Amino acid sequence: MMTANVELESTIQRVREEVAALHGELVRYGLVVWTGGNVSGRVPGADLFVIKPSGVSYDELGPEDMILCDLDGNVVPGTPGSERSPSSDTAAHAYVYRNMPEVGGVVHTHSTFAVAWAARGEEIPCVITGMADEFGGPIPVGPFAVIGDDSIGRGIVETLRGHRSRAVLMQNHGPFTIGVSARDAVKAAVMVEDVARSVHYAREAGPLIPIPQDRIDALYARYQNVYGQAEDDRR
Amino acid sequence: MMTANVELESTIQRVREEVAALHGELVRYGLVVWTGGNVSGRVPGADLFVIKPSGVSYDELGPEDMILCDLDGNVVPGTPGSERSPSSDTAAHAYVYRNMPEVGGVVHTHSTFAVAWAARGEEIPCVITGMADEFGGPIPVGPFAVIGDDSIGRGIVETLRGHRSRAVLMQNHGPFTIGVSARDAVKAAVMVEDVARSVHYAREAGPLIPIPQDRIDALYARYQNVYGQAEDDRR
Amino acid sequence: MMTANVELESTIQRVREEVAALHGELVRYGLVVWTGGNVSGRVPGADLFVIKPSGVSYDELGPEDMILCDLDGNVVPGTPGSERSPSSDTAAHAYVYRNMPEVGGVVHTHSTFAVAWAARGEEIPCVITGMADEFGGPIPVGPFAVIGDDSIGRGIVETLRGHRSRAVLMQNHGPFTIGVSARDAVKAAVMVEDVARSVHYAREAGPLIPIPQDRIDALYARYQNVYGQAEDDRR
Amino acid sequence: MMTANVELESTIQRVREEVAALHGELVRYGLVVWTGGNVSGRVPGADLFVIKPSGVSYDELGPEDMILCDLDGNVVPGTPGSERSPSSDTAAHAYVYRNMPEVGGVVHTHSTFAVAWAARGEEIPCVITGMADEFGGPIPVGPFAVIGDDSIGRGIVETLRGHRSRAVLMQNHGPFTIGVSARDAVKAAVMVEDVARSVHYAREAGPLIPIPQDRIDALYARYQNVYGQAEDDRR
Repeated sequence: MMTANVELESTIQRVREEVAALHGELVRYGLVVWTGGNVSGRVPGADLFVIKPSGVSYDELGPEDMILCDLDGNVVPGTPGSERSPSSDTAAHAYVYRNMPEVGGVVHTHSTFAVAWAARGEEIPCVITGMADEFGGPIPVGPFAVIGDDSIGRGIVETLRGHRSRAVLMQNHGPFTIGVSARDAVKAAVMVEDVARSVHYAREAGPLIPIPQDRIDALYARYQNVYGQAEDDRR
Repeated sequence: MMTANVELESTIQRVREEVAALHGELVRYGLVVWTGGNVSGRVPGADLFVIKPSGVSYDELGPEDMILCDLDGNVVPGTPGSERSPSSDTAAHAYVYRNMPEVGGVVHTHSTFAVAWAARGEEIPCVITGMADEFGGPIPVGPFAVIGDDSIGRGIVETLRGHRSRAVLMQNHGPFTIGVSARDAVKAAVMVEDVARSVHYAREAGPLIPIPQDRIDALYARYQNVYGQAEDDRR
Repeated sequence: MMTANVELESTIQRVREEVAALHGELVRYGLVVWTGGNVSGRVPGADLFVIKPSGVSYDELGPEDMILCDLDGNVVPGTPGSERSPSSDTAAHAYVYRNMPEVGGVVHTHSTFAVAWAARGEEIPCVITGMADEFGGPIPVGPFAVIGDDSIGRGIVETLRGHRSRAVLMQNHGPFTIGVSARDAVKAAVMVEDVARSVHYAREAGPLIPIPQDRIDALYARYQNVYGQAEDDRR
Repeated sequence: MMTANVELESTIQRVREEVAALHGELVRYGLVVWTGGNVSGRVPGADLFVIKPSGVSYDELGPEDMILCDLDGNVVPGTPGSERSPSSDTAAHAYVYRNMPEVGGVVHTHSTFAVAWAARGEEIPCVITGMADEFGGPIPVGPFAVIGDDSIGRGIVETLRGHRSRAVLMQNHGPFTIGVSARDAVKAAVMVEDVARSVHYAREAGPLIPIPQDRIDALYARYQNVYGQAEDDRR
């Protein structure tokens, strides 16, 4: 029992470090401003996840600042960071972890071009081979939902369950991404903004050439096969 | 009396440090070029504010370079930095402090997308939930006004008094933002450019989906409640 | 024989260092995100080239991480980096080296504006003198081709052989560039994104002024003459 | 005589340092890629100017790398840097110094948005107060001209002589800027891209509001008066 606790503590610490560091990737790729955006990561082997505190500068996000929550989104008392409030999107993250056991990480940003598609409630068509590789088709739009109940989390899960895409554009809001790990979800957040931007510019200058569905399928299958589904491989 | 003076000196020094450091945020978020743009902060408990000098590089803005002014915009003689001229927008900042006692900070930039909306004299519609949170509705346009008298300051105050938005787009000019503190006004300057950019790209590709007014109201109310109105909380 | 081997080893090491360092230029100019994009360089005097490993962060690309391949794209066993997989675009690079002996370097990115033109299958018209200098005319589009056989490599070679341009926009995919050296190919990757962006913005605001063909020819001839064709001169 | 020489050497050294450092500003503001772009500065009190070498990375531009030229654009033999070729735009810079004695610095870039206006041969209308301050009206377009004779220099001089603007968009080419000093010309290069970008985005979304000519005149007059014409003041 004590051994199990020691091991769990060590796992939690590793997830804290990983999630804290991954926030730096949101800054590096220009996906967030001020204190907006958030990354969370599930603690493997426990009904817990680690998430960013609310309203704290990206310059000050060390492992001990991350907040440990249970799968109902409640802060675990007495743990490092628990004196602060977790991200105001914590309920949405928790809903995803409760309902999608295969998900190891969740990311939310207000990245510019993904938000632009979301403000029109328009899915991003799959016209780039890199997008077929990564998302296997278009990036779908989720329902309009506001903070305050489970509606954001439910909208994410209902849109992404059974979908190839790991990214959803919540209408009038912005992108949420999921992954087998926090790192994988961050990669999806980076890639969804990249394709949102490229396809925006492509389309504003003239008609897009569609990629035939069988080629999209082949590209996606190859990419999943080559890079696999495991956390370590989807880097 | 001496105690009061010592305390005031210490407060002024703190505001100098805060205002000097906040100029770095304008650079970090790409809101300014060369020596353009300026941040000011009110000295709590005194009829004074601290502002950037005119025409000085952002690389050289330490606390002692900031300039102390009274609420008529006159430099306080004999104080650090007083040998230089304050920002050419000082009169506008002073007008705001004189007429809006609840304002603790003012920021002005020529950030790209906010200027683009200003050059058309067009308000930014509220089609993003993050914008509803932060500004509670559209970003309004202020009158065309030129430097040389009180017309810029008056335009800011007349537009923002009683308005939820802490940002105004002065026509053909650019954004001015206010806040409960200098930090809060800088946050508003960062966020107004962020939404100006996202909504620009959103709209150029097709029709926007409006957010119903009651949802905007609910989002704004929640955000004010969660983050509060106090300086420390709106970070 | 031993001398020859020692010399070859030294050449390989130099190419490893050059190719590793050049990946930093892709990051510096914002041409890549996450682990996307790749640079390769031919080993002079041998049927070998050096290329980026697959799925490794740009922060971790030292000379020993580069992978040595033969001209069929097979990893040379027992050499540094050979425990990893080379870039999934290795077959395309190998095809170019086999079929274009004058090529010393190949680069592939998904840079935003080049991808936007590629998603429309539209060549970039030559309306900027700097583009006439560098590419001698429009940037051509290559066929739609998917990973898995020689079709990408073949598309690059068929499009660029005998063409002035060192860059091709593979339809629905992105730019591939070639050069007399890896550095020259990276320069072409930087320049193709630069002109893709400038011409995108130019055209979206109104009609472009064409440059007469004889002026394009003169600009290209002068640039080739001044800067020469040698690796060291095309910097 | 010896004293005069010592003084001249010291002045040349100061200009070398200033011009070398100013190239960093082109990088900082994203106005150049690879080795493109160039800054030159006149040596006060002599028929000489200092300019960037051709084809050298921005990472390697120290004072001793700058090249000293006479006003015909010939390299002064035996001086530091004279073993290299000066920028291929040297003839254009020299022409400006010969024909505009009031000019102390010249800058050329291929910055994105200024090039976009140049590719359409379209002047940038003055719809932003900051542009009225800085340039006193629209940014004019110069003729199509190619490297090889005096036609670029002549086009710059004929367009800017007697014009308020310190920037000209050479058709199908890009911006050249002049100033009372090299620093002032660099400022103009930064500002012309800034306004080219803002007005591009402004106009693509709807009709622009013109600024009445008398307001433009008043803004320009005030700015010249406040900041003066001297090198030190236009910072």
